[in-house]
Amino acid sequence: MEKEVKIIFEPSGRSVYALAGTVLLEVAARAGFILQTPCGGGATCGKCVVRIRAGICPASESELAALGASRVAEGFRLACQARLSGPLTVEIPDTSLFQSRQQILTSDTGETMEVLPRVRKTCVQLTPPLHDESGSDLDRLHATIGPCPVCLSAVRDLPGALRQSNFMATAVRVDNELIAVEPGDTTSACYGIAFDVGSTTLVGTLVDLVTGADIAVAARVNPQTSFGDDVISRIQKCRTAPDGLQQLQASVLDGINRIVDELERKAGIDRNRVYEVVFAGNTTMQQILCGIDPSPLGELPFTPAFREALETRASDLHLHVHPCAKVYVFPQIGGFVGGDTVSGIVATRLDRFTKPALLVDIGTNGEIVLAHNGNMLATSVAAGPAFEGARIVHGMRATTGAIEKIILDGDVRLNVIGNSKPAGLCGTALIDVAAELLRVGLLDSTGRILSSNEAPGGVSPALRARLIEDRGEVNFLLVAAAESGTRAPLFIYQRDIRELQLANAAIRAGINILLKMAGLNASDLGEVLLAGAFGNFIRRNHARRIGMLPPVPCSRIRFVGNTASFGAKRALLSTQEKAYADRILGKVRHVDLSLDPEFQMEFSSALLFPEHDLDECGE
Amino acid sequence: MEKEVKIIFEPSGRSVYALAGTVLLEVAARAGFILQTPCGGGATCGKCVVRIRAGICPASESELAALGASRVAEGFRLACQARLSGPLTVEIPDTSLFQSRQQILTSDTGETMEVLPRVRKTCVQLTPPLHDESGSDLDRLHATIGPCPVCLSAVRDLPGALRQSNFMATAVRVDNELIAVEPGDTTSACYGIAFDVGSTTLVGTLVDLVTGADIAVAARVNPQTSFGDDVISRIQKCRTAPDGLQQLQASVLDGINRIVDELERKAGIDRNRVYEVVFAGNTTMQQILCGIDPSPLGELPFTPAFREALETRASDLHLHVHPCAKVYVFPQIGGFVGGDTVSGIVATRLDRFTKPALLVDIGTNGEIVLAHNGNMLATSVAAGPAFEGARIVHGMRATTGAIEKIILDGDVRLNVIGNSKPAGLCGTALIDVAAELLRVGLLDSTGRILSSNEAPGGVSPALRARLIEDRGEVNFLLVAAAESGTRAPLFIYQRDIRELQLANAAIRAGINILLKMAGLNASDLGEVLLAGAFGNFIRRNHARRIGMLPPVPCSRIRFVGNTASFGAKRALLSTQEKAYADRILGKVRHVDLSLDPEFQMEFSSALLFPEHDLDECGE
Repeated sequence: MEKEVKIIFEPSGRSVYALAGTVLLEVAARAGFILQTPCGGGATCGKCVVRIRAGICPASESELAALGASRVAEGFRLACQARLSGPLTVEIPDTSLFQSRQQILTSDTGETMEVLPRVRKTCVQLTPPLHDESGSDLDRLHATIGPCPVCLSAVRDLPGALRQSNFMATAVRVDNELIAVEPGDTTSACYGIAFDVGSTTLVGTLVDLVTGADIAVAARVNPQTSFGDDVISRIQKCRTAPDGLQQLQASVLDGINRIVDELERKAGIDRNRVYEVVFAGNTTMQQILCGIDPSPLGELPFTPAFREALETRASDLHLHVHPCAKVYVFPQIGGFVGGDTVSGIVATRLDRFTKPALLVDIGTNGEIVLAHNGNMLATSVAAGPAFEGARIVHGMRATTGAIEKIILDGDVRLNVIGNSKPAGLCGTALIDVAAELLRVGLLDSTGRILSSNEAPGGVSPALRARLIEDRGEVNFLLVAAAESGTRAPLFIYQRDIRELQLANAAIRAGINILLKMAGLNASDLGEVLLAGAFGNFIRRNHARRIGMLPPVPCSRIRFVGNTASFGAKRALLSTQEKAYADRILGKVRHVDLSLDPEFQMEFSSALLFPEHDLDECGE
Repeated sequence: MEKEVKIIFEPSGRSVYALAGTVLLEVAARAGFILQTPCGGGATCGKCVVRIRAGICPASESELAALGASRVAEGFRLACQARLSGPLTVEIPDTSLFQSRQQILTSDTGETMEVLPRVRKTCVQLTPPLHDESGSDLDRLHATIGPCPVCLSAVRDLPGALRQSNFMATAVRVDNELIAVEPGDTTSACYGIAFDVGSTTLVGTLVDLVTGADIAVAARVNPQTSFGDDVISRIQKCRTAPDGLQQLQASVLDGINRIVDELERKAGIDRNRVYEVVFAGNTTMQQILCGIDPSPLGELPFTPAFREALETRASDLHLHVHPCAKVYVFPQIGGFVGGDTVSGIVATRLDRFTKPALLVDIGTNGEIVLAHNGNMLATSVAAGPAFEGARIVHGMRATTGAIEKIILDGDVRLNVIGNSKPAGLCGTALIDVAAELLRVGLLDSTGRILSSNEAPGGVSPALRARLIEDRGEVNFLLVAAAESGTRAPLFIYQRDIRELQLANAAIRAGINILLKMAGLNASDLGEVLLAGAFGNFIRRNHARRIGMLPPVPCSRIRFVGNTASFGAKRALLSTQEKAYADRILGKVRHVDLSLDPEFQMEFSSALLFPEHDLDECGE
């Protein structure tokens, strides 16, 4: 097995291990850095520039052409071109990040984003009341900041705040409502948190509402996973257990509050200076989070309780931030196309692309949005948990010990997360192995693994030796017992391929239906955006090879990172982004595939792997 | 000692005991029924008409003149004229009540009050969602009731409420915000509670917001009294104990929630159908209730935290009603002239009287408002707890065993609450005894009780025998040991008279200062309104005799009952009344007497009892 090399990213110091030959763009993504690639990784836009600080990384012709010899000599490289040959220390300039710390994201449409939060802090110096004055503390404050509605909690703050620091105090207003009064000048301490509430993972980003900068990020497994992996199991829990909703809500809120704890600790700030929280999640997650029974999402016609954004107060959800902090829950499109998808559209400006564009968020539920002429079609498909490693015999989540990349190159080459012995394989490796088996001719288009006898002539003896027959089926030996972290051999079984075919076909059928409804062909797509944690690690050519993605050139397939998180941050930073999210609802048509016979047809054809591929970019 | 007689009031069945000769109006007040007396008890308006259902009650000439012989024969009497001669059962028609169940109060200005609550219930029948519809539950509701802001709690109700009763549900809106959705048609169950939050007593009135009718009333001692009798002791507790405010707030909220329990039980309603709560109390009570530190009220310049009405939600105060119920806290005029005074003005329409009018709420703190030409002057004076029975050697609250009325008629005649042996005397009896001693010449204008030697010639031997000298002072024996409930003699001591003089002078000086500021004389006053629990039991001529009230004819002195409670109910029933309360703030000038040298002068003169009285009405 090949040795992985260590890559350290500056200025964060985060490090990952990766196989030699891997493109730097992919390595950076695994470390959590999504770089800008508006040209689709074609070495033409120069946006993904990074700088090598230590280690050897030869420059390609295209990098020399794009950057010039002097910058290449200074260590600059294009992340979409540079490949690992040994350990590296790589500096990522802020300007190359898709999710920049400055929040000045230049999207496809070239617009910049402003910091226009709804939270406003004003420091006032009042004169102490004199004996012959009859006004109240609040009258005096209003006389300075102007009239505004007042939250009880702010009136509670008032007498103490004014008298603690000689009548100098800071008024905190959200929209125009006074929610707090703090002693002294606290205008520089003004924060919000954007949450991506996934079925599996919770991610919180603490944002400085003055500068727009990220202060800290924290992620945790959604504690609800103990009640079941997918949203259906959570809905069932609410439908059957008398206190199911309460349990699930308490569970996710506990996870969220632990993230608040972690963000407070990491950033060294006071949680009472967090005045707004934004949540983006799928419909089931958002409803449970809010304490709204998701039972109707478990039966036809899968009706959500609300579609427009929901606003409430932190204390209503027992969030451990300022009790009067505003909570904004993203608008939802339908029962299975939720706030995370709207947030993804906000993050990518999908409706503003000039050519037809597809946004695909691959997970247990695959959400697919097709934008065309400013309007959008959105749907979701049940891909099942195969990509999360579930229902795959040796499947596992993308954590330490998981094989995350497989290349068939005479024999099997593997990349294992955490530079340890392999214990199983995660979703990206599953796609890799299927794509590679198809390429070398060991898998036919029906999804059958061929036996050694049936294998084409060019297949190496090493690979042939891995085709193990068992009760009329052929399984593919990935790792021998001696090299396995579990001391047992790791296989790709025939039935694992069947699971993959189901997941794969669901996504592709969803894409095909939307294209058909819009009267488009795959070749009309200007962009295919891959979102979500899984999407960021996928090999684009492999996903296309197995037919999950339609046949479009890799240059048109882009990784856009955790768009749910990023869209939530945008909404947190600007009231205009919230208005944009609301407007999106009016532009999206929700396509329900659950009873659609056309979908069944498309699904059946998509169960077959494509005979050929474009084969124009290797990753 | 004379025997009291039992009076039963219909239709409530409430009963009290009173001395023969007592005016029915006063007896009714003691049972909690405040009757309309716009003519001031002059037998001319006929508004206080009652009907004798059992017992003998001879009619006076004035009743015959006002009611006619046939109605008198049917048992009708004027409560302001009829005097007890034996036990009675008396029916009080709704129309005679000052605080009518119908809420159609005809005030001095002749206006009627409408039921215009901010809570609105709408029953809707929605069609269940079909498969090809993509709207949410909320979309469907909005399509029927129109767009409106939504409280999270209402969205929580929505999926269940719609599906529990075939998509028939009731939307509850406060102002225009949707706060709840209930299954089925619940439009007839719509309630609110008006609270009078006194330093000593809490009174809650459960009101039907559809009909405007009172459903139940409950009262409790404010549990805060365990921390001290007056507001100053409560403020001190907040200033000195680290968790003083929390303790005091929890204490009063506990009392309020117990009243909610009692109202729910009495009325047999569901507390979750209570959608609005209104509070009226003095500034300290209101601030503590809301959790707002009252410490600045304990130091110059006694600045309140707020003046305009405060609005919040029931859950913010942990009130055990619907969690999204609106809470309205009355506007406050100044540090010691609070929401109860504004509520009193709302109840009495004080600013709309055609002649100058005085509103006096006598308690530990005496609040005084003078209205003249639509504008008002308001102040408060520290009367001390003498009227509550405190600091009086044999003083006690107006409960069972308290002497509440004293007449010197050759000897001492007493009325004891609860028809039991006397155990002490309450505030009204203190005023009575001082006024009677002045009348018979046993008390001089400096407040000195004369000795038997000094007593005027006409004084009976029985009264003379009650003047007991002790260490150079004379005390007046009220009840001999043999007749006392405590088996010890009950006295009015010389020093009790001194306490009374202080309380008395504070109120009178406050009245005089306001009259002076307005350029008015006592004779200009068209009305003197006595409010509050104590005010309702006072003998008007006696209060005037001792100089507490200025020399105006009794016909101009009216009892107006618990105006704080009644004003709160008005605000609960109508948004127009809330707007009126807010407008009052702009019409009232807050007069701070704490550092006013003029007040000291007036106070000194008011320490002397008047030499004479108008002596035109005996009660």
